[in-house]
Formats: sequence, structure tokens, C-alpha cells
Amino acid sequence: MNKINAAYCAGFLDGDGSIYVQMKQNTTYRFGFQISPQIVFFQSQKERLFMEKLWRLINKGYIRERKDGIIELIIGDEKSIRNFLKAVLPYLKVKRKQAKLMLKILNQRKKIKNGSDFLRVARLIDEFRDLNYSKKRKQTSQEVKKVLERERLLTP
Amino acid sequence: MNKINAAYCAGFLDGDGSIYVQMKQNTTYRFGFQISPQIVFFQSQKERLFMEKLWRLINKGYIRERKDGIIELIIGDEKSIRNFLKAVLPYLKVKRKQAKLMLKILNQRKKIKNGSDFLRVARLIDEFRDLNYSKKRKQTSQEVKKVLERERLLTP
Repeated sequence: MNKINAAYCAGFLDGDGSIYVQMKQNTTYRFGFQISPQIVFFQSQKERLFMEKLWRLINKGYIRERKDGIIELIIGDEKSIRNFLKAVLPYLKVKRKQAKLMLKILNQRKKIKNGSDFLRVARLIDEFRDLNYSKKRKQTSQEVKKVLERERLLTP
Repeated sequence: MNKINAAYCAGFLDGDGSIYVQMKQNTTYRFGFQISPQIVFFQSQKERLFMEKLWRLINKGYIRERKDGIIELIIGDEKSIRNFLKAVLPYLKVKRKQAKLMLKILNQRKKIKNGSDFLRVARLIDEFRDLNYSKKRKQTSQEVKKVLERERLLTP
């Protein structure tokens, strides 16, 4: 991606995109939770052609059509998120903190060895709540702590 | 504005901005209507600092705080709109048609000599309705036609 396209994507992400990490309880995972980092762009269904254009430009992720008429372009795999954020970071103005937090979480996640490490990552994920003004998001790390304690995965 | 900033602004405008022309009935105007072209960027009030940054970058328009917690950066004067659109047009991907329509309307408006010319511009303004998917907007040109006919400003 050249500088012009990276600057365009940064503007588009600042205006209409979202950087966040979902945490869902899922017992098939070692620490009881699935961590899903995501960068999402939203547009009306009528902008499908544009979304496909943006998709080719970014060359990452996939397109999802929601039932409410919104199309999402989702970048969900770690490597793509990392590469995309590194390209747009120099030009981001609004969501720079979210981008840095995401990169920090991806780095910390790699180093998780025990329950305490996992809880530390969960607390970083909580920080998105304030950055994205999402009042609905609960303090996921509190849930994580409960589960880790119940399963005796936290070192005392 | 350099190319990188222009590309960023294009992305931001595509994601979160709006290009449109308001038409309001106003008897102090020659043809009974005021034409207000506008480019608007929207952000949450918490992004005031960013909006001021964007404002300095664009170096045009003014900032307005709405009662619902949204901040608008509005470019409303013809010369600024024209300069801004010319800078970002090469990089726009979603709102390219709106940008071109706006420039066309600004050009046509300058040449208005009589009621028929005015009605032609009003019909161009109607085209924003489909481009912006604004179902609420009525066919303003029909209103304009009625007023022009009543005031005998249309050549038969």
C-alpha cells in the first residue's frame, strides 16, 4: 500500500471505522475466553462496489453483509491487522490510541503463559471501552478474573 | 494542502462526511429560496481536539456544537468548498459523484439569470437525494416550480 492509499485508509478509518477486541466466553479455549481482534469498516449496502474497491486496495480481510443493510469489511487475522495498522498509523489522527492499544494487545497475547498473563491482556482490552465510548461494553476483565479463579488458573 | 493530507481528508469525507445543498424557502431572496451548499464533517464532542486539528489542516469553515453532543465542521462558503473539493476529488472513492454534482451546481448558480435557470439548479439539487440516500428530503424543485409560477418568474 503506497502512502497516498495509506493516508486515505487512515482518514476512512478515522471517520467510519472501528478498532476493537471482542472477548467471548468459550470453554474450548485454554483460559475460557476467545479473543477476537477486529478492524471494521461500515457502509450502506448500496456502497458494495466501493467496499470491494477498498477491499482490493487493502488486500486483506473479508466482506460481510448484515441483515440491517450494512456491509462490513472486516480485518480479523492478526498478521493482516498488524500490517494494516503499521501502514496507516503515521496518518491516523482520531484512532491513533486505539491502533497503538491493539498492537500492544497483539504483542502481549503472544507472550501469554499463565492465567495472570491472560488477565493482564483482558485488562488492556477493557481500555477500548473508554477509547471507543462504548458504554454497553462491560468490564470483561472482571468476568475473566472470576472464571480464572474458579478454574484455579490464577497464581495466588 | 499537500497530497497526503488531501488523501486523508478524502478518506475522512468518504467515511464520515457529507456533501449536500440545502434549499430553504426565504422570501428575501430573488427567487424565493436560499441555496446553501455545505460540506460537513461529524464527530462526537469528545473529539473536539481532533476537529480543531482537522480544521487547521483544512484551513476553511467553522466548528459548530450541536445540542445532541455532535460537533460539526462546516465548510459553507463557495470559494472554500470549491478549493477543498478540487484538492480531495482525485482521492475520493465513495462521494465522488456528490463532489462533482456540487461543483456543477456552484458553476450553474453563478449563471442564473431567470426563473428557468433557477429551476434547473433546483433540479440538480434534487439529485443529491438519491446520491445521499436521504429519503426525508423532498423534491425541492417541485416547490421551487410552484413558487416561481405563482410569482410569474418562469418564462412560459
